[in-house]
Amino acid sequence: MNTKILAASLALALGAGAASSVLAQAKPEVLVKQRQAAMTLQGKYFGPLAAMAQGKIPFDAKIAARNAGFLSALSQMPWDGFDASTSGVKSEALPAIWKDSAKFKSAQDLLVSNVAKLADAAKGGDEAAIKTASAAVGKACGGCHDNFREKK
Amino acid sequence: MNTKILAASLALALGAGAASSVLAQAKPEVLVKQRQAAMTLQGKYFGPLAAMAQGKIPFDAKIAARNAGFLSALSQMPWDGFDASTSGVKSEALPAIWKDSAKFKSAQDLLVSNVAKLADAAKGGDEAAIKTASAAVGKACGGCHDNFREKK
Repeated sequence: MNTKILAASLALALGAGAASSVLAQAKPEVLVKQRQAAMTLQGKYFGPLAAMAQGKIPFDAKIAARNAGFLSALSQMPWDGFDASTSGVKSEALPAIWKDSAKFKSAQDLLVSNVAKLADAAKGGDEAAIKTASAAVGKACGGCHDNFREKK
Repeated sequence: MNTKILAASLALALGAGAASSVLAQAKPEVLVKQRQAAMTLQGKYFGPLAAMAQGKIPFDAKIAARNAGFLSALSQMPWDGFDASTSGVKSEALPAIWKDSAKFKSAQDLLVSNVAKLADAAKGGDEAAIKTASAAVGKACGGCHDNFREKK
């Protein structure tokens, strides 16, 4: 493989900043941006599931399955972004994240676990099961947002 | 299911803005934020694969497999964010996205396809195959960034 071509592609693709950031510990600001990106996308794909569960939009098994699958990946992505090095970066993250890290970890694990159950339910295609599993995911979202995020 | 509890959880979890945004066509600014979030996370998880392919960090089959799996989902996420309604929102997206939409779609498809090949290679665990597939993904990133993103 021609590594020069790859390096050039990467520089084009990611921009010099992103390409170099992987070679060292990611900067706190980058970690915050990445974890916020994961939250944004969880909102994008959970939103319709929640609206279906609440009967605010029609149930669509195909969209439910796609979104639940995406959430299986996304629900694992934010957590390494809450590195202690980020505690001084302006965001809605509360100090409790680092003070009560065991509780924060439990809340993360509950989300990942509930999303996995939702993804299983979504593969099965049963509307009631999917809606119940979506409600449990919504509750798990609140488990972090209630205790570890600044109230707006 | 108690939909009142779900609604309350959601309001807490997503904030009123996010919860209501799913009930209508997403606003252009939201679509831009979501597509940029997908790009940020593609950078997060492709960066180490690219660095491994270039020999800048040691090859790690486990990280490669995890990241390639995440990229399988992430590579599908940005595209609906390039809705025509977003063409007036300030971003690095070039007008060519909407003028030459067939070419833009081909470039998207190439990325998704090359990421799928990378994910297959990563499941197999063969270092050389993973590195070659990573290089092809890097090239596919460039396929959009060269033609459809403002040069920095």
